[in-house]
Amino acid sequence: MPTSPSPTTSSSSSTDDLQHILRVDAVSDATWDALRHTAVQHRHDGTLHAGAASGSSLGLVFMNPSLRTRTSMEGAAAHLGARHTTLVPGNGSWALEWELGAVMDGEAAEHVREAIGVLSRYHDALGVRVFASGTDYGADAQDTLIRTVAEHATVPVINLESAWAHPCQGLADAALLTERYGDALADKTFVLSWAPHPKPLPMAVPNTALRTAARCGMDVTVARPDTHALDPGVMAEAEALAETQGGSVSATSDQAAAAEGADVVYAKSWGGPLVYENPKAESEARAARSDWRITADLMARTRNGAFLHCLPVRRNVVVDDAVLDGPHAAHLDQAEYRLHAQKALLQYVWSL
Amino acid sequence: MPTSPSPTTSSSSSTDDLQHILRVDAVSDATWDALRHTAVQHRHDGTLHAGAASGSSLGLVFMNPSLRTRTSMEGAAAHLGARHTTLVPGNGSWALEWELGAVMDGEAAEHVREAIGVLSRYHDALGVRVFASGTDYGADAQDTLIRTVAEHATVPVINLESAWAHPCQGLADAALLTERYGDALADKTFVLSWAPHPKPLPMAVPNTALRTAARCGMDVTVARPDTHALDPGVMAEAEALAETQGGSVSATSDQAAAAEGADVVYAKSWGGPLVYENPKAESEARAARSDWRITADLMARTRNGAFLHCLPVRRNVVVDDAVLDGPHAAHLDQAEYRLHAQKALLQYVWSL
Amino acid sequence: MPTSPSPTTSSSSSTDDLQHILRVDAVSDATWDALRHTAVQHRHDGTLHAGAASGSSLGLVFMNPSLRTRTSMEGAAAHLGARHTTLVPGNGSWALEWELGAVMDGEAAEHVREAIGVLSRYHDALGVRVFASGTDYGADAQDTLIRTVAEHATVPVINLESAWAHPCQGLADAALLTERYGDALADKTFVLSWAPHPKPLPMAVPNTALRTAARCGMDVTVARPDTHALDPGVMAEAEALAETQGGSVSATSDQAAAAEGADVVYAKSWGGPLVYENPKAESEARAARSDWRITADLMARTRNGAFLHCLPVRRNVVVDDAVLDGPHAAHLDQAEYRLHAQKALLQYVWSL
Repeated sequence: MPTSPSPTTSSSSSTDDLQHILRVDAVSDATWDALRHTAVQHRHDGTLHAGAASGSSLGLVFMNPSLRTRTSMEGAAAHLGARHTTLVPGNGSWALEWELGAVMDGEAAEHVREAIGVLSRYHDALGVRVFASGTDYGADAQDTLIRTVAEHATVPVINLESAWAHPCQGLADAALLTERYGDALADKTFVLSWAPHPKPLPMAVPNTALRTAARCGMDVTVARPDTHALDPGVMAEAEALAETQGGSVSATSDQAAAAEGADVVYAKSWGGPLVYENPKAESEARAARSDWRITADLMARTRNGAFLHCLPVRRNVVVDDAVLDGPHAAHLDQAEYRLHAQKALLQYVWSL
Repeated sequence: MPTSPSPTTSSSSSTDDLQHILRVDAVSDATWDALRHTAVQHRHDGTLHAGAASGSSLGLVFMNPSLRTRTSMEGAAAHLGARHTTLVPGNGSWALEWELGAVMDGEAAEHVREAIGVLSRYHDALGVRVFASGTDYGADAQDTLIRTVAEHATVPVINLESAWAHPCQGLADAALLTERYGDALADKTFVLSWAPHPKPLPMAVPNTALRTAARCGMDVTVARPDTHALDPGVMAEAEALAETQGGSVSATSDQAAAAEGADVVYAKSWGGPLVYENPKAESEARAARSDWRITADLMARTRNGAFLHCLPVRRNVVVDDAVLDGPHAAHLDQAEYRLHAQKALLQYVWSL
Repeated sequence: MPTSPSPTTSSSSSTDDLQHILRVDAVSDATWDALRHTAVQHRHDGTLHAGAASGSSLGLVFMNPSLRTRTSMEGAAAHLGARHTTLVPGNGSWALEWELGAVMDGEAAEHVREAIGVLSRYHDALGVRVFASGTDYGADAQDTLIRTVAEHATVPVINLESAWAHPCQGLADAALLTERYGDALADKTFVLSWAPHPKPLPMAVPNTALRTAARCGMDVTVARPDTHALDPGVMAEAEALAETQGGSVSATSDQAAAAEGADVVYAKSWGGPLVYENPKAESEARAARSDWRITADLMARTRNGAFLHCLPVRRNVVVDDAVLDGPHAAHLDQAEYRLHAQKALLQYVWSL
C-alpha cells in the first residue's frame, strides 16, 4: 500500500531497499538470532505483540496447496491485528502467466507482473507460494519464479515455499531447536535423512533444512542414497555457513550410521538433480529405496533424538506410525512453530 | 492452542475433559436449555457478547460444501472477536487419509491425525464437516470419522455435520422453536416428514431433528414411507429422550394424517438404511414417492404450522414454491438461527 | 441482518427503500460526486474512517473468478472494521439455481432465492459477482441475474460485475480521473478503445466505462470496428448522461484518429451484440482485428494520455508490454482505486 505523499507516482518509487524474505539467509546473523528467539517468546506468551500490526494488510497467494502455511500465516497476521486476503490463482482467481514478454493468447488471463503489482497496492506485505517446475533445473535452482514475484512487488515478499527455499519452515525449525537445546544447540548433531515417497518431491525443504542447521552451527549429516545427493551448490553454501558458525556439513549413503547418536533426525523425501536429468532412473532408484523409511529401530540408534518432518507426511511410506506416535516425535511442535516464527517474520518486515 | 506452561509437552496433555460438541446430547439438560435461550438473546441483541472471544482462534475444516454453516461459523467467530481460518482439504489444502494404520502410497498426502493435531496447535477450537460415507452403515452409524477427528484433537471439536449428527442445526432449530412457542413448546406437535429428492441424502439432519424435538419435549411423529424408516437405534434414543422430557415419538407412513393439526412440519429427504443394503431398491422406492413433496394443501392441514427445512432445498421437488414463499415458511428464520446458536456454542466451548 | 424489533417477521419487511448499487447511475449526482471525492481522500489518508463499520458484516458471493474485486472488497470491509465471508457457489458452496419456478431436479442444490435470503440474515450488505450468460441478449441487457439477487435480498446489494454493469470499477475510474484532472476533468477527451482478445468478452466494463466518462462530463469517443459497436441502448443512455453534464459521446471505427490528442485511452475487448446473433461472424471479425492492439505508437498520438485497463489484461494481445511498462500506464493506479472507491461505497450503503 503506498505511503508516499505523491500516490500517483508510487508505482515508480525505488524498491531496492525492500526487505524480501526469500531464503533463510535473507537476513543478517543478528536478525536471524533475534527472529528465532522472538519466535520462542511467542510460543510461551500467546498475547505477545497482539495487535501490533493493526491497520496493516497481508496478501497471501498460493499457487500450490497448503494447510500449515495458510493457516499459520492467516493466524499470525490476525494475531498481530493485520487483515489479510488469500488468493489461489486458477481457483477463484485468474490463472497467471509467468513469462516476461509472453504473447498471452493461451489460458492465462493475467500476468504475474500485474497481479503482484496490483496486490502491492492493496497490501503492506505479500506471502507467495510457488513450487518448483520440476523440469527446468536452471530456473528452479535460480528460484526464478519467486524472484520474479519479488522483482514486481513494491512491498516486502515472504517466500511461502518456492522451488529452492522455504524460509518460514527454516525459521520455525531453528526456533524449535533453539527452544529444545538452548545454548547447547551448536554442539548437537543433525541428520537430514532422505526418505521414500511415491512421487519425486521438490528441493525447497531439504535445501532449507540443510542451510538452517548449518546456520545454527550444528554438525550436519545428509544421509541419502547416492542417486539422491543434494545440489552441489547448495551443499557448498551450507558448508560455508557451517564454517562461519563453527559447525560442519557432510554427506553419506549409510542411513543407519548417520542416525547413530544423532540428536535430530529430519526426514524428507526429494527427487534431487536426477529427476531433471533422467526421471525414469530417478523413479527406479527411489522405488528401490523403500527401506529408507524412518522406523522405530532407526530412531533407537539416536541419542534420544527428535524426529522432525515439515509435513504433510505419508504414514508408513516416509515414516512408520510407531515413530510419529512415539516418544521421539516432535513434528507437531515443529508445525506449531510455524505460527510463532511467522509472527516474528511479519514483525520484522513491518519493523514492529 | 496450547496454554500449558510447558509447551513442548502440550501434545501429550490429557484431553479427556475436552468439551467436544459432536451431538445435541453432548451437553447436560441445563446447558442445553441455557444454550437455546442464549441463542434467542443473540437474535434480539446483535451486540450481545461482541468481542468476548478476542484473542481466540477458530479453525474450520470442510470436507463437503457449505453455505450457511461456513458463513454463520465465520460470522459467529468474528462477532465474538475471534479470528478464524477455513480449509477445504483436497481444494487448496491437502487431501486427507482417514484410515488408521494406512500405508499412504495413494492420493492422500496428509493423515487426519497430523491435520487435526497441527490445527489443534493453531486454534482454540475446531469446527469440522465430514459427511457420511454412504456405503458403510456401521461406520456411519458410529459416526467414526467425526469421532476420529475428536480423538486426535487437543482442543474442543464442534461437529459441523457428520454422518449421523448435525448439532449446530439441532441447537438452531431448538432456539427457533423456543422463541416461537416459549413455555408452550412441550405441548406442540412436531412432524418430521420425509420428502422426495433426486439423490439418497444422508441421515445427519433427520437424526438430529428427531433428537432435538424429543429433547424439547414435543410430541414427535416421523412421517416416511415404510421403505425409509429411520435407524431403529436413533428411534430408540429419541424415545428415551422424549420419555425424560414428557413428550412422545412415533412413526407413520401416512403423511397427510401426520400433518393434521401439526404445529411444525420439518421436511427432509433421506436415503435411510435401505440405501446401504440395496441402493437400487432405495432409488426405486424414492422415485415412486414424488407425491410426498410438501405442498400448500399439506400445510393447510396443519394448525398454522411452521414449515422448516435445514436448507439447501430443491424447490418443486422437496417442497413447492407456494410453501417456501407462503405464510407457513419459517426456513429463513431457521437459517438465521444458525448464527445465533453457534455464537452460543462458541461461548460455551470457550467458557465465556 | 434484521434489526426489526419483531425478528420473526423481518423477512417480510419492506425492502423497497434498500440502496442497492447495481449501476453507476444508482445514485444521485450529488452522491456520485461525494463518492468519488471520498475515494480520493481515502487514497491520500490510509487511516480515514478506519473501523467506522465495526460490528457490520459483508457477504461476498463470486459466481466468477476475481483477483482485484475480491481482494479490494475484503480489504475495504476490514479497513472499516467490518467482518466478511466470501463464498464461491459450486466450489466449496452449493451450485445455485437462478430460474424462478424451476423444478430443481438437476445439478443445482440451492436456489438463489434461499441463498440470498439466508445471506441477508447473516450480513448487513452483499457484494455479488455474476457474469453475463453470453447467449441470451435480452436477459444480459436487462441484467436479469443481478436484479434477481437484489429482488431477494433484504440488505443492500453491491454489484461486483454483472452482465451489463460494473459500478465498483466505474467509481474507481471516476475517482482516478478526478484525482488526475481535478476541475479540468470535464474538458478532457476519453477514448474507449476496443482491443483484440482470444475470447468474446462481456459488456459490463465497456458499458460502465462509457457511462462513467459521460457522467464525468468528458468528451467520449468509442473507437471500435463496425462489427463491434456497443449496444444502441447503452449508447443512448450515455448520450443523455453526457448532455446533462455538458460532455459528448460519439463512435468511430478509426482508432488512430480517435487517439489523436486524447487525454485517456481506456482499452477493453468485448464481443458485443454480434456474439449473440452470430458467434462465428464475431469470432472471425475479432480475429481479423489483431491490429487494434494498443501500441506505444498509438499512445504517442495522445496528449500525454493515460492508458487505463480494468485488468486482468493479456499482454501483447490486448496491449503491448511497451505501453503497460511505459510512461502512459496508469492501470495500477486504477486498480488501486478499487480499494478506495469501495470503502466509499460501503460507507454509503451503511450510512456511515
